[in-house]
Amino acid sequence: MALKEISKIIAKELKQFDEIFKNSIRSKIFLVDVITKYILKQKGKKIRPLLVFLSSKLCGETNETTYRGAALVEILHTATLIHDDVVDEANVRRGLPSINSVWKNKAAVLMGDFLLAKGLLLSLDNDDFTFLKIMSDSVRRMSEGEILEIEKSKSLNTDEKTYFKIISDKTASLISTCCEIGAASSTNSLEYRKHLREFGENLGIAFQIRDDILDFIGKKNLMGKPTGISDVGDKKLTLPLIHAIKNSPKIEANSILKIIKNGIDKSAKKIIYDFVHTYKGIDYSIKSSIEFAEMAKSNLSIFPNSIYKQSLIAFTDFVVSRVS
Amino acid sequence: MALKEISKIIAKELKQFDEIFKNSIRSKIFLVDVITKYILKQKGKKIRPLLVFLSSKLCGETNETTYRGAALVEILHTATLIHDDVVDEANVRRGLPSINSVWKNKAAVLMGDFLLAKGLLLSLDNDDFTFLKIMSDSVRRMSEGEILEIEKSKSLNTDEKTYFKIISDKTASLISTCCEIGAASSTNSLEYRKHLREFGENLGIAFQIRDDILDFIGKKNLMGKPTGISDVGDKKLTLPLIHAIKNSPKIEANSILKIIKNGIDKSAKKIIYDFVHTYKGIDYSIKSSIEFAEMAKSNLSIFPNSIYKQSLIAFTDFVVSRVS
Repeated sequence: MALKEISKIIAKELKQFDEIFKNSIRSKIFLVDVITKYILKQKGKKIRPLLVFLSSKLCGETNETTYRGAALVEILHTATLIHDDVVDEANVRRGLPSINSVWKNKAAVLMGDFLLAKGLLLSLDNDDFTFLKIMSDSVRRMSEGEILEIEKSKSLNTDEKTYFKIISDKTASLISTCCEIGAASSTNSLEYRKHLREFGENLGIAFQIRDDILDFIGKKNLMGKPTGISDVGDKKLTLPLIHAIKNSPKIEANSILKIIKNGIDKSAKKIIYDFVHTYKGIDYSIKSSIEFAEMAKSNLSIFPNSIYKQSLIAFTDFVVSRVS
Repeated sequence: MALKEISKIIAKELKQFDEIFKNSIRSKIFLVDVITKYILKQKGKKIRPLLVFLSSKLCGETNETTYRGAALVEILHTATLIHDDVVDEANVRRGLPSINSVWKNKAAVLMGDFLLAKGLLLSLDNDDFTFLKIMSDSVRRMSEGEILEIEKSKSLNTDEKTYFKIISDKTASLISTCCEIGAASSTNSLEYRKHLREFGENLGIAFQIRDDILDFIGKKNLMGKPTGISDVGDKKLTLPLIHAIKNSPKIEANSILKIIKNGIDKSAKKIIYDFVHTYKGIDYSIKSSIEFAEMAKSNLSIFPNSIYKQSLIAFTDFVVSRVS
């Protein structure tokens, strides 16, 4: 199944979600409302709400709290994207100029904070304390993961273990939160919640490895960020390169690190690309992402078969085979 | 009483607070911990914890939850200061280089997010849901108030009503939250909470007016930000100037607005300073800040007399007479 077909299974829910999401981020301040409407135009893939709904349906009946859970994670995700664009000085987001490029950094940081507050209020006003407990630890992990990534980019010495720590925290934590919130919205079973939390964690790791592979092999990107070996330019060492460095002669690895340290241009990108291929960094990473996807799928084994279980399995396969 | 003397009354609590604050923002990530330790070196005046403790003692016994409430507001305040410094490109905070100037914008935005998450976790882990409800609406107001300020700085048409809306939201909301959280930590009386919330709101407005006056007349600033008519340079119209514009001949007001629009230099600052004085902008603002201080004090009238009540009154008087 492609992403579109999976989304179709919960098309009704996603449509109703749009309405709730829109209403949750309203403001009486004119400029806030203008930016909010702009955010609603930057249509994302809604992967996180999709995971909330599928996880919820896997465990029981989707209900009002499920919608609020989905809105909470999407609001939170949107806030972090806005902050990311400020710090990365990104000009484009989802095919449209980024908030910071239209309204400057100050309004963008504040809009991120505003959205965090609105997400919080949505849960607090409805006594969704369980959601908040699940979610807030992932906010901590997201910021810690990204700061660890910065720390390592300075020393250029990320090893595989550190890489997995970084991507678990910065990416998998929120994916895992989506699945657990979905479960918590429709079942009291802590066992179900635990399995979906672990499913999300493995899925999130697989997702990020695939993203890091795509940074090397190129995305078929119709909208959004420009692609092509941008991580190395930011001095981020990701799995394909970490594997190649580990498995190449030390002298060659050091010369590659020296190139990265000095800042790379187009010809340097070609050298790094060839280096990663020579030492099987892509093959290894593809294998690794598939291993995590398989672990994710095995986390679902306790659930009886259903269209929703099949959809989560299909989504997992999609994540590690996608080209954009 | 000066601020030092007021602080002495709850010196024991403030000392214990330091320990709890420090422990609440710890991290296992090396760089996060390094930045955290740096934040602890940037000693602030701890005005917000002070208000939490005094409000709590006014209503009953200070207890464990009071400390967590004080830590919550100080963590939140610290997070917003870090984000503020990023967006204002400030190089100095509390006499030390700012986080963004030492570790760059990316780490600074993420540290702000990390602190917000840690504040949230501190309350969630202890089921302090009442605190969260009181606090999260003030996070929304803080970001909305600052965005409204940006909106108005573009059109240069802030009137007195809008000015009070901006400063209530961006400054008074958190001060009010401090006082209400203090009350909520030691009493179940909604009446007491309401009075302290309103006290904080009026105190916060008086506080911000005084800040805006000091921007014109100069601060005796030993540590922290450089002073001297910086708001007008940012195209922020504050009460002294708003009053002068309203009470001057239209032709003169327009010429001042034109100067501000074109970006001001040293000689322009002198012209604006004289204009504000000529049309009694400072006198009017001093009067206004005192009026809000008086309203704040009258919000305390339902409380029996005590050293804590006297301290809050003294603090209010200090706020509108301070020179830094």
